Amino acid sequence: MPEAVPAAIRIDRPDDPRIAAYTDIRERDLVGRGRRFVAEGETVLAVLLRQRLHAIESLFILDKRLPLLAGLLARLPDGVPLYTASREVMDAVAGFPIHRGILAVGRRGEPGEAGAFLSRLPERALAVGLVGLANHDNVGGIFRNAAAFGADAVLLDGTSCDPLYRKAIRVSVGGALCVPFFRAASAHALVDVLEGAGFAVLAFSPRGREELSALTPPARAALLLGTEGPGLPDDVLARCRTVSIPMHGAFDSLNVATTSGIALHHLALHHLALHHPVSRSAPR
Amino acid sequence: MPEAVPAAIRIDRPDDPRIAAYTDIRERDLVGRGRRFVAEGETVLAVLLRQRLHAIESLFILDKRLPLLAGLLARLPDGVPLYTASREVMDAVAGFPIHRGILAVGRRGEPGEAGAFLSRLPERALAVGLVGLANHDNVGGIFRNAAAFGADAVLLDGTSCDPLYRKAIRVSVGGALCVPFFRAASAHALVDVLEGAGFAVLAFSPRGREELSALTPPARAALLLGTEGPGLPDDVLARCRTVSIPMHGAFDSLNVATTSGIALHHLALHHLALHHPVSRSAPR
Repeated sequence: MPEAVPAAIRIDRPDDPRIAAYTDIRERDLVGRGRRFVAEGETVLAVLLRQRLHAIESLFILDKRLPLLAGLLARLPDGVPLYTASREVMDAVAGFPIHRGILAVGRRGEPGEAGAFLSRLPERALAVGLVGLANHDNVGGIFRNAAAFGADAVLLDGTSCDPLYRKAIRVSVGGALCVPFFRAASAHALVDVLEGAGFAVLAFSPRGREELSALTPPARAALLLGTEGPGLPDDVLARCRTVSIPMHGAFDSLNVATTSGIALHHLALHHLALHHPVSRSAPR
Repeated sequence: MPEAVPAAIRIDRPDDPRIAAYTDIRERDLVGRGRRFVAEGETVLAVLLRQRLHAIESLFILDKRLPLLAGLLARLPDGVPLYTASREVMDAVAGFPIHRGILAVGRRGEPGEAGAFLSRLPERALAVGLVGLANHDNVGGIFRNAAAFGADAVLLDGTSCDPLYRKAIRVSVGGALCVPFFRAASAHALVDVLEGAGFAVLAFSPRGREELSALTPPARAALLLGTEGPGLPDDVLARCRTVSIPMHGAFDSLNVATTSGIALHHLALHHLALHHPVSRSAPR
């Protein structure tokens, strides 16, 4: 039986006010969208449709893509408009070629208070803290890994970039949409809230005293990551357990997103087998 | 005692034939440079100066940067010209702003024959095989991890991109310059040469039969990675040991460079402590 695809609303003019949220996408990336965000591509759309942290305001899909997306679009909540247009109109609205022809505008959920959220997590839980991570590729990559290994939450200090920036969502393959995240005013405030919820904070640094592979994760473990160059501030390292990943000879340190993947893989092995249903990806 | 910095040759005109190899850098990225490659930035330059796989043809450094680079430049081999220019001239030569003001042109070393190289490695050794990896960010990221964890060699099939493409070198933070790499005509030829040198080939796939964390690496281990979408071809998987990294729920697979980092970290723990002098990065 074919699935029920919601009726699409045809847009014929780039200046149609109903798709105003999709105009000049790149320029608005720079100035920000307040509580809104833009997601793009089929994989990210699939995550957006199954997550419950953020609301979907509308979709804007290239007309030729509609039949191929029927399975996904059947999951669109009632009352959310589905707009469609020709390639010419869609590209004129966005201001550049939308090759994949799949756009969505969402509205951020209220994250609530980090301490309360963390306290309600199961006895065994896994969190990530980010300090000074201003690069969207790195933050996107970290959220991708956080989702892949089932992290329960990400905390970001005030100088880290927005996980719902368009490029960060894309690089995260939707991980930024489905892992709850919270802001802290500073690196110390971030550590305070984790410790207040009973998390042992494992600060990653080339100078770390413990080696990752030898570490048995605490019941509630939080990995703390800083920028690739300067790393975490000394006064933050001083108050945490510090962990290193041994490397070969004199080579420069690892990329921070890669570091998050290695650390989460190790912590998840000990952790998530107990806490989450870890399963392999489906064959493809 | 101040180090001896080689005398710099001043370039005053963008059309000076001595710096012809630095003209129109982006356009030449696309058409290729034959046996030459371009490296950029201070960290990559430091790797270029200490590796012995490839020759340095010349350096081209912004005049204002020379005093700050004295320590590095003292390592320049005798007879290699060091060109310098004002920002205006340098940007006009390159065709776009060279913010860091550090460029080098190298000439690829002759890699020799992969099988012979692999056979000469120590009894315990670690290699990486790449199949169909056409993305410079991913290949650069994999070389960064290969260098960080002391992999002995990387083999690439004919459809994988050039590790000495300018962006791949940059993303690798110089790893592409210091890890020996070889081409194979096909994925099967690549597996053949690894097996011929006594390497057990561990093919990574979400469908892999063994879990990475449970795997004790063979003396000579090669990890084989395919593209993120289709993955390794079925007939390649069928002839290899297959390895998976368990993930949480239905989330999409990991980025391939992140996968290489997780895999190399695990294999290096068992491996390199015996084979290489593994040490922490210097404090900074």
